[in-house]
Amino acid sequence: MQKEDCIFCKIARGDIPSATVYEDENFRAILDLGPASYGHTLILPKEHFTDLCELDEAVAEKVLGVAARIGKAMKSGLHCAGFNVVQNNGEAAGQTVMHFHVHVIPRYEGGPRMVNWTPGENTEAEREEILGKIKVELGK
Amino acid sequence: MQKEDCIFCKIARGDIPSATVYEDENFRAILDLGPASYGHTLILPKEHFTDLCELDEAVAEKVLGVAARIGKAMKSGLHCAGFNVVQNNGEAAGQTVMHFHVHVIPRYEGGPRMVNWTPGENTEAEREEILGKIKVELGK
Repeated sequence: MQKEDCIFCKIARGDIPSATVYEDENFRAILDLGPASYGHTLILPKEHFTDLCELDEAVAEKVLGVAARIGKAMKSGLHCAGFNVVQNNGEAAGQTVMHFHVHVIPRYEGGPRMVNWTPGENTEAEREEILGKIKVELGK
Repeated sequence: MQKEDCIFCKIARGDIPSATVYEDENFRAILDLGPASYGHTLILPKEHFTDLCELDEAVAEKVLGVAARIGKAMKSGLHCAGFNVVQNNGEAAGQTVMHFHVHVIPRYEGGPRMVNWTPGENTEAEREEILGKIKVELGK
Protein backbone atom coordinates (compact mmCIF):
# COMPACT_ATOMS: atom_id res chain seq x y z
CA MET A 1 0.00 0.00 0.00
CA GLN A 2 1.14 3.51 -0.85
CA LYS A 3 -0.02 6.76 0.69
CA GLU A 4 -0.74 9.43 -1.89
CA ASP A 5 0.70 12.48 -0.15
CA CYS A 6 3.75 10.75 1.33
CA ILE A 7 7.12 11.96 0.07
CA PHE A 8 8.88 8.76 1.13
CA CYS A 9 6.32 6.65 -0.76
CA LYS A 10 7.13 8.67 -3.88
CA ILE A 11 10.86 8.30 -3.36
CA ALA A 12 10.64 4.60 -2.49
CA ARG A 13 8.69 3.77 -5.64
CA GLY A 14 10.96 5.92 -7.80
CA ASP A 15 8.53 8.72 -8.72
CA ILE A 16 10.96 11.20 -7.19
CA PRO A 17 14.61 10.61 -8.05
CA SER A 18 17.00 9.89 -5.20
CA ALA A 19 20.60 8.91 -4.62
CA THR A 20 19.81 5.20 -4.29
CA VAL A 21 22.42 3.18 -2.41
CA TYR A 22 20.48 -0.08 -2.46
CA GLU A 23 17.19 -1.45 -3.74
CA ASP A 24 15.37 -4.74 -3.46
CA GLU A 25 11.79 -5.98 -3.60
CA ASN A 26 10.89 -4.45 -0.24
CA PHE A 27 13.22 -1.52 0.33
CA ARG A 28 14.99 1.42 -1.21
CA ALA A 29 17.98 2.89 0.66
CA ILE A 30 18.91 6.47 -0.19
CA LEU A 31 21.44 9.06 0.87
CA ASP A 32 20.02 11.54 3.37
CA LEU A 33 20.07 15.05 1.90
CA GLY A 34 20.73 16.54 5.36
CA PRO A 35 23.35 14.05 6.48
CA ALA A 36 24.63 13.69 10.05
CA SER A 37 27.85 12.34 8.56
CA TYR A 38 29.46 11.43 5.24
CA GLY A 39 27.37 8.57 3.86
CA HIS A 40 24.28 8.90 6.10
CA THR A 41 21.71 6.59 4.54
CA LEU A 42 17.97 6.02 5.03
CA ILE A 43 16.29 2.66 4.51
CA LEU A 44 12.69 3.05 3.33
CA PRO A 45 10.18 0.24 2.89
CA LYS A 46 8.37 0.50 -0.44
CA GLU A 47 5.05 0.02 1.28
CA HIS A 48 3.72 2.75 3.52
CA PHE A 49 3.89 2.17 7.27
CA THR A 50 3.78 5.10 9.67
CA ASP A 51 6.22 3.66 12.18
CA LEU A 52 7.51 0.49 13.83
CA CYS A 53 4.17 -0.08 15.57
CA GLU A 54 2.50 -0.37 12.17
CA LEU A 55 5.26 -2.14 10.27
CA ASP A 56 4.28 -5.44 8.70
CA GLU A 57 5.99 -8.36 10.46
CA ALA A 58 7.33 -9.87 7.25
CA VAL A 59 8.94 -6.54 6.35
CA ALA A 60 10.22 -5.99 9.91
CA GLU A 61 12.12 -9.28 9.71
CA LYS A 62 14.16 -8.01 6.78
CA VAL A 63 15.13 -4.55 8.00
CA LEU A 64 18.19 -5.36 10.10
CA GLY A 65 19.61 -7.63 7.42
CA VAL A 66 19.53 -4.70 5.00
CA ALA A 67 21.04 -2.39 7.65
CA ALA A 68 23.82 -4.92 8.27
CA ARG A 69 24.64 -5.16 4.57
CA ILE A 70 24.75 -1.39 4.23
CA GLY A 71 26.77 -0.94 7.44
CA LYS A 72 29.34 -3.49 6.27
CA ALA A 73 29.55 -1.78 2.87
CA MET A 74 30.09 1.55 4.65
CA LYS A 75 32.93 0.10 6.69
CA SER A 76 34.71 -1.34 3.67
CA GLY A 77 33.76 1.36 1.15
CA LEU A 78 33.78 4.55 3.23
CA HIS A 79 36.30 3.34 5.81
CA CYS A 80 34.14 4.41 8.72
CA ALA A 81 35.06 3.04 12.14
CA GLY A 82 31.48 2.19 13.10
CA PHE A 83 27.88 3.13 12.46
CA ASN A 84 24.61 3.88 14.24
CA VAL A 85 21.25 2.42 13.37
CA VAL A 86 18.49 4.80 14.49
CA GLN A 87 14.75 4.51 14.03
CA ASN A 88 12.41 7.13 15.49
CA ASN A 89 8.71 6.65 16.23
CA GLY A 90 6.47 9.65 16.71
CA GLU A 91 7.07 13.39 16.65
CA ALA A 92 8.05 13.30 20.33
CA ALA A 93 10.91 11.00 19.33
CA GLY A 94 12.10 13.24 16.51
CA GLN A 95 10.35 11.47 13.62
CA THR A 96 9.84 14.09 10.93
CA VAL A 97 8.51 12.03 8.01
CA MET A 98 5.64 9.75 8.99
CA HIS A 99 6.79 6.84 6.83
CA PHE A 100 8.84 4.22 8.71
CA HIS A 101 12.55 4.68 8.01
CA VAL A 102 15.87 3.62 9.47
CA HIS A 103 18.93 5.85 9.62
CA VAL A 104 22.31 4.19 9.06
CA ILE A 105 24.92 6.74 10.10
CA PRO A 106 28.63 6.05 9.53
CA ARG A 107 30.95 7.23 12.31
CA TYR A 108 34.61 8.03 11.79
CA GLU A 109 37.63 7.97 14.09
CA GLY A 110 37.79 11.28 15.94
CA GLY A 111 34.37 12.39 14.70
CA PRO A 112 31.22 12.91 16.76
CA ARG A 113 29.65 9.84 18.28
CA MET A 114 26.00 9.09 18.75
CA VAL A 115 26.06 9.70 22.50
CA ASN A 116 23.29 12.12 23.04
CA TRP A 117 22.08 11.46 26.50
CA THR A 118 23.55 11.95 29.93
CA PRO A 119 22.85 8.72 31.75
CA GLY A 120 20.22 9.34 34.38
CA GLU A 121 19.52 7.29 37.46
CA ASN A 122 16.58 5.40 38.77
CA THR A 123 15.92 3.70 42.07
CA GLU A 124 14.99 0.08 42.50
CA ALA A 125 11.47 1.22 43.39
CA GLU A 126 11.22 3.15 40.13
CA ARG A 127 12.50 0.16 38.18
CA GLU A 128 9.89 -2.08 39.82
CA GLU A 129 7.21 0.46 38.94
CA ILE A 130 8.32 0.59 35.30
CA LEU A 131 8.57 -3.19 35.05
CA GLY A 132 5.03 -3.52 36.34
CA LYS A 133 3.68 -1.01 33.86
CA ILE A 134 5.40 -2.55 30.82
CA LYS A 135 4.98 -6.21 31.71
CA VAL A 136 1.27 -5.93 32.27
CA GLU A 137 0.97 -4.63 28.71
CA LEU A 138 3.22 -7.33 27.28
CA GLY A 139 1.07 -9.93 28.96
CA LYS A 140 -2.14 -8.73 27.28
CA MET B 1 27.75 -19.07 22.18
CA GLN B 2 28.58 -17.06 25.28
CA LYS B 3 31.70 -14.98 25.92
CA GLU B 4 33.18 -15.58 29.35
CA ASP B 5 34.14 -12.04 30.28
CA CYS B 6 31.07 -10.32 28.79
CA ILE B 7 28.78 -8.57 31.27
CA PHE B 8 25.82 -8.65 28.87
CA CYS B 9 26.24 -12.42 28.38
CA LYS B 10 26.03 -12.84 32.15
CA ILE B 11 22.96 -10.62 32.38
CA ALA B 12 21.28 -12.21 29.37
CA ARG B 13 21.67 -15.72 30.74
CA GLY B 14 20.54 -14.65 34.20
CA ASP B 15 23.84 -15.07 36.10
CA ILE B 16 23.64 -11.40 37.07
CA PRO B 17 20.19 -10.22 38.18
CA SER B 18 18.55 -7.48 36.14
CA ALA B 19 15.26 -5.63 35.91
CA THR B 20 13.89 -7.86 33.17
CA VAL B 21 11.12 -6.34 31.09
CA TYR B 22 10.82 -9.23 28.64
CA GLU B 23 12.40 -12.60 28.00
CA ASP B 24 12.06 -15.23 25.32
CA GLU B 25 14.21 -17.99 23.82
CA ASN B 26 16.53 -15.56 22.07
CA PHE B 27 16.44 -12.31 24.02
CA ARG B 28 16.31 -10.69 27.42
CA ALA B 29 15.20 -7.06 27.62
CA ILE B 30 16.26 -5.12 30.72
CA LEU B 31 15.92 -1.63 32.11
CA ASP B 32 19.02 0.48 31.49
CA LEU B 33 20.61 1.49 34.80
CA GLY B 34 21.68 4.84 33.32
CA PRO B 35 18.46 5.67 31.49
CA ALA B 36 18.05 8.40 28.90
CA SER B 37 14.38 8.56 29.90
CA TYR B 38 11.85 6.88 32.16
CA GLY B 39 11.60 3.29 30.92
CA HIS B 40 14.77 3.14 28.77
CA THR B 41 15.16 -0.53 27.90
CA LEU B 42 17.93 -2.62 26.32
CA ILE B 43 17.28 -5.70 24.22
CA LEU B 44 20.11 -8.25 24.53
CA PRO B 45 20.41 -11.45 22.52
CA LYS B 46 21.27 -14.40 24.76
CA GLU B 47 24.03 -15.45 22.40
CA HIS B 48 27.12 -13.30 22.14
CA PHE B 49 27.51 -11.17 19.03
CA THR B 50 29.79 -8.15 19.05
CA ASP B 51 27.61 -6.00 16.84
CA LEU B 52 25.19 -5.96 13.92
CA CYS B 53 27.91 -7.03 11.49
CA GLU B 54 28.33 -10.27 13.46
CA LEU B 55 24.70 -10.87 14.39
CA ASP B 56 23.28 -14.20 13.27
CA GLU B 57 20.68 -13.73 10.52
CA ALA B 58 18.03 -15.80 12.28
CA VAL B 59 18.42 -13.64 15.40
CA ALA B 60 18.50 -10.41 13.39
CA GLU B 61 15.11 -11.26 11.91
CA LYS B 62 13.52 -11.26 15.34
CA VAL B 63 14.96 -8.08 16.83
CA LEU B 64 12.54 -5.50 15.45
CA GLY B 65 9.54 -7.62 16.34
CA VAL B 66 10.69 -7.58 19.96
CA ALA B 67 11.39 -3.83 19.79
CA ALA B 68 7.90 -3.25 18.37
CA ARG B 69 6.26 -5.24 21.17
CA ILE B 70 8.21 -3.34 23.81
CA GLY B 71 7.58 0.04 22.18
CA LYS B 72 3.84 -0.63 22.01
CA ALA B 73 3.85 -1.73 25.66
CA MET B 74 5.69 1.50 26.57
CA LYS B 75 3.07 3.57 24.76
CA SER B 76 0.16 1.91 26.51
CA GLY B 77 1.85 1.27 29.88
CA LEU B 78 4.10 4.31 30.32
CA HIS B 79 2.00 6.68 28.21
CA CYS B 80 4.99 7.86 26.24
CA ALA B 81 4.26 9.77 23.03
CA GLY B 82 6.86 7.91 20.97
CA PHE B 83 10.11 6.02 21.22
CA ASN B 84 13.53 5.70 19.63
CA VAL B 85 15.21 2.49 18.58
CA VAL B 86 18.99 2.95 18.62
CA GLN B 87 21.69 0.41 17.92
CA ASN B 88 25.35 1.44 17.95
CA ASN B 89 28.20 -0.42 16.27
CA GLY B 90 31.79 0.24 17.28
CA GLU B 91 33.39 2.57 19.80
CA ALA B 92 33.40 5.37 17.23
CA ALA B 93 29.59 5.10 17.19
CA GLY B 94 29.28 5.23 20.97
CA GLN B 95 29.01 1.48 21.60
CA THR B 96 30.29 0.92 25.14
CA VAL B 97 29.53 -2.78 25.72
CA MET B 98 30.75 -5.00 22.90
CA HIS B 99 27.71 -7.29 22.94
CA PHE B 100 25.04 -6.40 20.38
CA HIS B 101 22.19 -4.49 22.02
CA VAL B 102 19.29 -2.32 21.03
CA HIS B 103 18.11 0.70 23.01
CA VAL B 104 14.38 1.34 23.14
CA ILE B 105 13.95 4.83 24.57
CA PRO B 106 10.48 6.17 25.40
CA ARG B 107 9.91 9.85 24.59
CA TYR B 108 7.34 12.01 26.30
CA GLU B 109 5.42 15.12 25.24
CA GLY B 110 7.56 18.15 25.97
CA GLY B 111 10.62 16.07 26.81
CA PRO B 112 13.89 15.90 24.89
CA ARG B 113 13.78 14.30 21.46
CA MET B 114 16.36 12.14 19.80
CA VAL B 115 17.52 14.82 17.41
CA ASN B 116 21.19 14.96 17.92
CA TRP B 117 22.56 16.12 14.66
CA THR B 118 22.44 19.32 12.74
CA PRO B 119 21.61 18.33 9.19
CA GLY B 120 24.65 18.86 7.02
CA GLU B 121 24.76 19.28 3.29
CA ASN B 122 26.34 17.43 0.46
CA THR B 123 26.67 18.20 -3.21
CA GLU B 124 25.50 16.00 -6.01
CA ALA B 125 29.14 15.22 -6.77
CA GLU B 126 29.68 14.07 -3.19
CA ARG B 127 26.57 11.94 -3.31
CA GLU B 128 27.75 10.30 -6.52
CA GLU B 129 31.12 9.62 -4.90
CA ILE B 130 29.48 8.02 -1.85
CA LEU B 131 27.12 5.96 -3.98
CA GLY B 132 30.03 4.61 -5.94
CA LYS B 133 31.94 3.65 -2.84
CA ILE B 134 29.05 1.87 -1.14
CA LYS B 135 27.53 0.21 -4.20
CA VAL B 136 30.78 -1.38 -5.27
CA GLU B 137 30.93 -3.06 -1.86
CA LEU B 138 27.30 -4.16 -1.98
CA GLY B 139 27.95 -5.72 -5.36
CA LYS B 140 30.80 -7.89 -4.09
